[in-house]
Amino acid sequence: MARQLKLGAFLMATGHHIAAWRHPDVPANAGLDFAYYKHLAQIAEAARFDAVFFADSVAAPSGDIASRMARSDHFEPLTLLSALSVVTEHIGLIATATTSYNEPYHVARKFASLDHLSGGRAGWNLVTSDNAAEALNFGREQHFAHAERYSRAREFHQVVTGLWDSWEDDAFVRDKASGAYYDPAKVHVLDHVGEHFQVKGPLNVARSPQGQPVIVQAGSSEAGRQLAAQTAEVVFTAQTSLAHAQAFYADLKGRLNQYGRSADSLKIMPGVFVVVGDTQSQAREKYETFQQLVEPEVGVALLGRMLGNFDLSKYPLDGPLPPLPLTDSGQQSRQKLLTELAGREALSLAELGRRIAGGRGHFSLIGTPVQIADQLQEWFEHGAADGFNVLVPHLPGGLEDFAKGVVPELQRRGLFRTEYEGRTLRQNLGLARPGNRFV
Amino acid sequence: MARQLKLGAFLMATGHHIAAWRHPDVPANAGLDFAYYKHLAQIAEAARFDAVFFADSVAAPSGDIASRMARSDHFEPLTLLSALSVVTEHIGLIATATTSYNEPYHVARKFASLDHLSGGRAGWNLVTSDNAAEALNFGREQHFAHAERYSRAREFHQVVTGLWDSWEDDAFVRDKASGAYYDPAKVHVLDHVGEHFQVKGPLNVARSPQGQPVIVQAGSSEAGRQLAAQTAEVVFTAQTSLAHAQAFYADLKGRLNQYGRSADSLKIMPGVFVVVGDTQSQAREKYETFQQLVEPEVGVALLGRMLGNFDLSKYPLDGPLPPLPLTDSGQQSRQKLLTELAGREALSLAELGRRIAGGRGHFSLIGTPVQIADQLQEWFEHGAADGFNVLVPHLPGGLEDFAKGVVPELQRRGLFRTEYEGRTLRQNLGLARPGNRFV
Repeated sequence: MARQLKLGAFLMATGHHIAAWRHPDVPANAGLDFAYYKHLAQIAEAARFDAVFFADSVAAPSGDIASRMARSDHFEPLTLLSALSVVTEHIGLIATATTSYNEPYHVARKFASLDHLSGGRAGWNLVTSDNAAEALNFGREQHFAHAERYSRAREFHQVVTGLWDSWEDDAFVRDKASGAYYDPAKVHVLDHVGEHFQVKGPLNVARSPQGQPVIVQAGSSEAGRQLAAQTAEVVFTAQTSLAHAQAFYADLKGRLNQYGRSADSLKIMPGVFVVVGDTQSQAREKYETFQQLVEPEVGVALLGRMLGNFDLSKYPLDGPLPPLPLTDSGQQSRQKLLTELAGREALSLAELGRRIAGGRGHFSLIGTPVQIADQLQEWFEHGAADGFNVLVPHLPGGLEDFAKGVVPELQRRGLFRTEYEGRTLRQNLGLARPGNRFV
Repeated sequence: MARQLKLGAFLMATGHHIAAWRHPDVPANAGLDFAYYKHLAQIAEAARFDAVFFADSVAAPSGDIASRMARSDHFEPLTLLSALSVVTEHIGLIATATTSYNEPYHVARKFASLDHLSGGRAGWNLVTSDNAAEALNFGREQHFAHAERYSRAREFHQVVTGLWDSWEDDAFVRDKASGAYYDPAKVHVLDHVGEHFQVKGPLNVARSPQGQPVIVQAGSSEAGRQLAAQTAEVVFTAQTSLAHAQAFYADLKGRLNQYGRSADSLKIMPGVFVVVGDTQSQAREKYETFQQLVEPEVGVALLGRMLGNFDLSKYPLDGPLPPLPLTDSGQQSRQKLLTELAGREALSLAELGRRIAGGRGHFSLIGTPVQIADQLQEWFEHGAADGFNVLVPHLPGGLEDFAKGVVPELQRRGLFRTEYEGRTLRQNLGLARPGNRFV
């Protein structure tokens, strides 16, 4: 079968557009409405998406302007995805969990548990935490510096995947007659002693249906790319042009060989912000409806976060983007892109804030299903993407538009599945089930 | 309405009897079978139980004998309960989370999330960790000493409940027209700085349907009772006789006044191990079926755990219980009870191990529904219990027996509900919804 592209549905409560919650079609209390998320997951599954994807932060946004954003009241992703596992059958369930403020034993256990609950559909988006608000909730004054974050993340990954291999797939014999519940030769004590963690093991969960949940990452810095090349199976990335995306794709795939990995073992899925209309002008109008709802101060606050946790509220809204130091956050590449954009188009702070209010620095497509499919196909067939993480301005409407318009167009072109290939997220993504390191 | 008793269903994968998994009626792979847990929760809900209750440990049991017990492969309780929230409507969902190896922000967030998912049915069983196997999974050589565990637990509780009050109940106005998502005057930053934790807040979850999930505890030591008197709303306890249970009940209720609490604000629910039969001899035979399946070494290993994490494998099976130092674990009162029992009846180590293989030191009732209801009624009406945590030898059979036999008998006597009183766990337990400390 010809190579087909993969699709993730990136679900942020009310949608990816910062002003989505103010739109009349959007339930403003979406963040804590399970029936709503069930509806979203079922739309995505009916459209044969590979996975739903949840970002996360272990802090509420601070500052007065946060009171004008729909970002402070959400389900914790692992509890939400456990519940969603019951009302879906095929779609992958990817949750973010930070390596900076967690313990690897808990993370290993929860994702293994979700993988069992869902029959093999769990994915872990491994991130590092880059803002002070999170640090302050976990007994630290400041977040870890970039290098330490990545060193900790690398070791965290090693421990988690080691714990996932605690038990061989056939360790649990459960022989009622003899009384042997498991074969002691098939349990492996990790006994990890490292720079950041000491974890004995074994995990108290059997090896899960996928062997290991799928590892997802989003780092674009040098350290992020190197960690991804070593450990990630899906990479979510923000790329604004075909040329940039091709360079990123070639660079990351080129790093796999040093770890003995094939190009196929890592799927690169750039984010794409899509606004679908029956005509291009209808799509453009739809987009403008959201843009009109952006308060300048809210756009600028989001911009500060996108640039790397800067407070820009003290600068004039109609003035230029002030010169900023290179961020120590995970947003270095986005900072570079946005700074270039502001200079190239001579945008004021408010204009730049409004510009990123929907796509947040991701590749943005506003048009008909055919126009959007053309672009996705171009990226997919020209070495820029193995698939896409789909960001829609508002939910559930934007996802319904994509499912009804763009998905059938991709299917008509033979670029996207019409039925799920397998039962597990790995099978649908075309990723091998990892062997147990101890066998 | 007359006072009625409360019932919790204590669910351990295959049942409370250590040899349950070997019984022909028990699915041996229950620990990781979601359909099985769904069935259990639905049996308990149909019988109008207040809650299902899950114990937990953040370690797999170690040593070769662990391979002969069904204790190493379970769902993590919060992921499991999140999934169960979708397939139940009324029953409370109580999960254990240790204060020794968790961060309060995570615990606050996950239980608040579960409370939202379930429409107000979450309960947190707050425990301290008392065994080395758990410590070794979290970078420590040894578990915390008793006093430090409790000091940490007390502060942990303070932080978690403080985070649950981060938002006033009506903080999220979500006014689309004005753009105000929440009222900044109604968010409260905890800014906790204590001996064990520094946590800023606010939580990134709105105040939950119950205001705060129900706080459950099981400590029986002096420090445990004092913590319970100050903070618990349900106490689960092991009591072996009416007199002991009455003394415990009077002691604990008597401590509430010093914290300005009413006797009704804390429900005491002793564990009761029940084997139900149509006749007493049938119940006795049923029990003996399980007893016959106990390997002496397995019973003794369980005994070591019940006495406080001692390795008894080096002592002769047919010899007496060796003298043991007072445990530093949470099992001090159980150690005392079992040591007295062994002396009184001159039991060998193997006999004592077999004796605790089912009830594990809890009040045990083996008989007809009428006989069992008589005993429960006596405890309930004579100052020994507000309800019971029901432990059955095997699942699902033992729970079905209780639901079909004992529950209707209790209902006939007017001692137990026939319909749920409310929508939340608090409402069913008769516990007030706590006000917000910041208001």
